[in-house]
Amino acid sequence: MSRTGPAGGALFISLEGIDGSGKSTQAQRLAAHLAHLGRDPLRTREPGGAPGAEEIRRLLVEGDPDRWSPETEILLFTAARRDHLERTIRPALAAGRDVITDRFADSTRIYQGATRGDLRGLVDDIHARVIGIEPDLTLILDMDPEVALTRGLARRSGEDRFEDFGLAFQHRLREGFRALAGEYPDRCVLIDAGRDADAIATDIEAAVARRLR
Amino acid sequence: MSRTGPAGGALFISLEGIDGSGKSTQAQRLAAHLAHLGRDPLRTREPGGAPGAEEIRRLLVEGDPDRWSPETEILLFTAARRDHLERTIRPALAAGRDVITDRFADSTRIYQGATRGDLRGLVDDIHARVIGIEPDLTLILDMDPEVALTRGLARRSGEDRFEDFGLAFQHRLREGFRALAGEYPDRCVLIDAGRDADAIATDIEAAVARRLR
Ligand SMILES: Nc1ncnc2c1ncn2[C@@H]1O[C@H](COP(=O)(O)OP(=O)(O)O)[C@@H](O)[C@H]1O
Ligand SMILES: Nc1ncnc2c1ncn2[C@@H]1O[C@H](COP(=O)(O)OP(=O)(O)O)[C@@H](O)[C@H]1O
Ligand SMILES: [Mg+2]
Ligand SMILES: [Mg+2]
Repeated sequence: MSRTGPAGGALFISLEGIDGSGKSTQAQRLAAHLAHLGRDPLRTREPGGAPGAEEIRRLLVEGDPDRWSPETEILLFTAARRDHLERTIRPALAAGRDVITDRFADSTRIYQGATRGDLRGLVDDIHARVIGIEPDLTLILDMDPEVALTRGLARRSGEDRFEDFGLAFQHRLREGFRALAGEYPDRCVLIDAGRDADAIATDIEAAVARRLR
Repeated sequence: MSRTGPAGGALFISLEGIDGSGKSTQAQRLAAHLAHLGRDPLRTREPGGAPGAEEIRRLLVEGDPDRWSPETEILLFTAARRDHLERTIRPALAAGRDVITDRFADSTRIYQGATRGDLRGLVDDIHARVIGIEPDLTLILDMDPEVALTRGLARRSGEDRFEDFGLAFQHRLREGFRALAGEYPDRCVLIDAGRDADAIATDIEAAVARRLR
């Protein structure tokens, strides 16, 4: 379910898109913009975003990429998300703070779905059972994976798990995120992320302004 | 679902019961008995039983007992179980080996259910979705928690997570395990574990013999 009437008008916003599409960059800019408006945004990210969830993140991003089956991975991502939700997201929203998260459940839907199409149902069922909430606004940063890959090369993180899937997989992810925008038109906004950061930030601020009204 | 016609006649056996009820002791004895019969049993345990699952176990048993909510805990236990099933249990059964596991899904059903009654449905739903299998035979070691606690004091392990719940909780667990034997009468055998180890082993060997015929 989508949240209707967030506590104290606090907005729950997720940024989604392939690696290198500018999520972290735009999350930081959006937080600065909301602070400038006199709001008190909290920036967070997945997997992780709470002490326990960050420990689960380490299990997911370190070590052999084949160490977990897709099903085990879905359970671990959802465990981390539940912890993130309980310890970070819900308390912040309850305190009237906007929450800006770099990835949320849509990443699991799209990454696991791109790994094996039949997993999408499992992701959705477990999500419905233990997470339930969707963001008020999901900004999908859409761009050519070839360009994103070039950007990404500038900042290898050591957490290579998500960055070493190859270009064909990144194209499937892009298509998955685009399809998701069609599936959830009320909360998703597709943003052309192949432009300069200022143009993207302007579009994002406009999408947020529509939600704040 | 219960497995019907295990590959090559291999048996999947779980031992359940409160801490100190003799699960590890009897698992070792049963493995020796099956080996003596010319079979090739594999002993394993939960949470854990595979390299990845053992890493998840560490998240569950170390640190502050309140670090995970019951829902997050259920997801982590099930993630570990899925890994254990894929990497250890299914390959052994497929190779015709009997599998003896010290705890399986019933522990999650009973421990989480004893924590908060409404969690049993969540455990069962996620189990049905990603585990599916039940043991051919579940040996429920039933005994007075006060006696079990006295036994347990002889071997503190540092993994205090499961041993520090207190006596009232242990009584709830005992009742939970007894009710489970009634719920799944085909696969569960309730064993009076308050006797000496030889008497218990004799009952267990008889229950296994009925499954081997
Ligand atoms: N609009 C943009 N144009 C060019 N480079 C960008 C733009 N947005 C971000 N970058 C750069 O691209 C790289 C990836 O951006 P980042 O925000 O980390 O993406 P993500 O978090 O989606 O992986 C970084 O080096 C960042 O500085
Ligand atoms: N039938 C028995 N009678 C007395 N002590 C026992 C018996 N079975 C096991 N023990 C002892 O009780 C303690 C707990 O047994 P253990 O097999 O580790 O139980 P569990 O694995 O269920 O926690 C150990 O010290 C063990 O040697
Ligand atoms: Mg980023
Ligand atoms: Mg034991």
